[in-house]
Amino acid sequence: MAVGKHIIIDMWNYDQSKDLKAVMRKAAEKAKMKIIGGDVQQFQPHGESLVMLIAESHISIHTWPEHSYAAVDVFSCGSPDSAYIAAIEIIRELNPEHYKVQIVDRG
Amino acid sequence: MAVGKHIIIDMWNYDQSKDLKAVMRKAAEKAKMKIIGGDVQQFQPHGESLVMLIAESHISIHTWPEHSYAAVDVFSCGSPDSAYIAAIEIIRELNPEHYKVQIVDRG
Repeated sequence: MAVGKHIIIDMWNYDQSKDLKAVMRKAAEKAKMKIIGGDVQQFQPHGESLVMLIAESHISIHTWPEHSYAAVDVFSCGSPDSAYIAAIEIIRELNPEHYKVQIVDRG
Repeated sequence: MAVGKHIIIDMWNYDQSKDLKAVMRKAAEKAKMKIIGGDVQQFQPHGESLVMLIAESHISIHTWPEHSYAAVDVFSCGSPDSAYIAAIEIIRELNPEHYKVQIVDRG
């Protein structure tokens, strides 16, 4: 039984001007995921951790601006396409110069 | 530059009687991770999604009791051992009959 797709994205030199919470929300909405909760924490002097619980599992973004690096996870047990739609939207919005994608079947 | 270890665990026939929030917290404490936030959502009629933001990234647990299945993620950019310590503690506490571990280097 495969429960869902987990898309793991490591990205470098992404657009640091973007509002990450808005990017996440837009990606979830585009993928027709149901947002049910989440949390956001800012680090000093920089860096941010965001997680959004969706009915289908979660989306997370952790940033290390000092390395121009962000770690993005989209884990969805919804429709097979929904994880891809959300992941592509986040990549499109953050527009990294370089990124690596790993796809893990969960369950 | 490797930022962290991401340990992906799929488990079946785990101990459903456990308090998952307490299990997560204990694992984080054992691994000397700093808990900075999180969220928990219950589904009807069953199932639970928990995410804990730690200074080092996150731990998440999603359960599908109807499939006796839980998806656990431990992503830590802390000391190389911390992700393993937390993951092992969660496996020990939830005591699954069968589990699969995948380790992803992030960054």
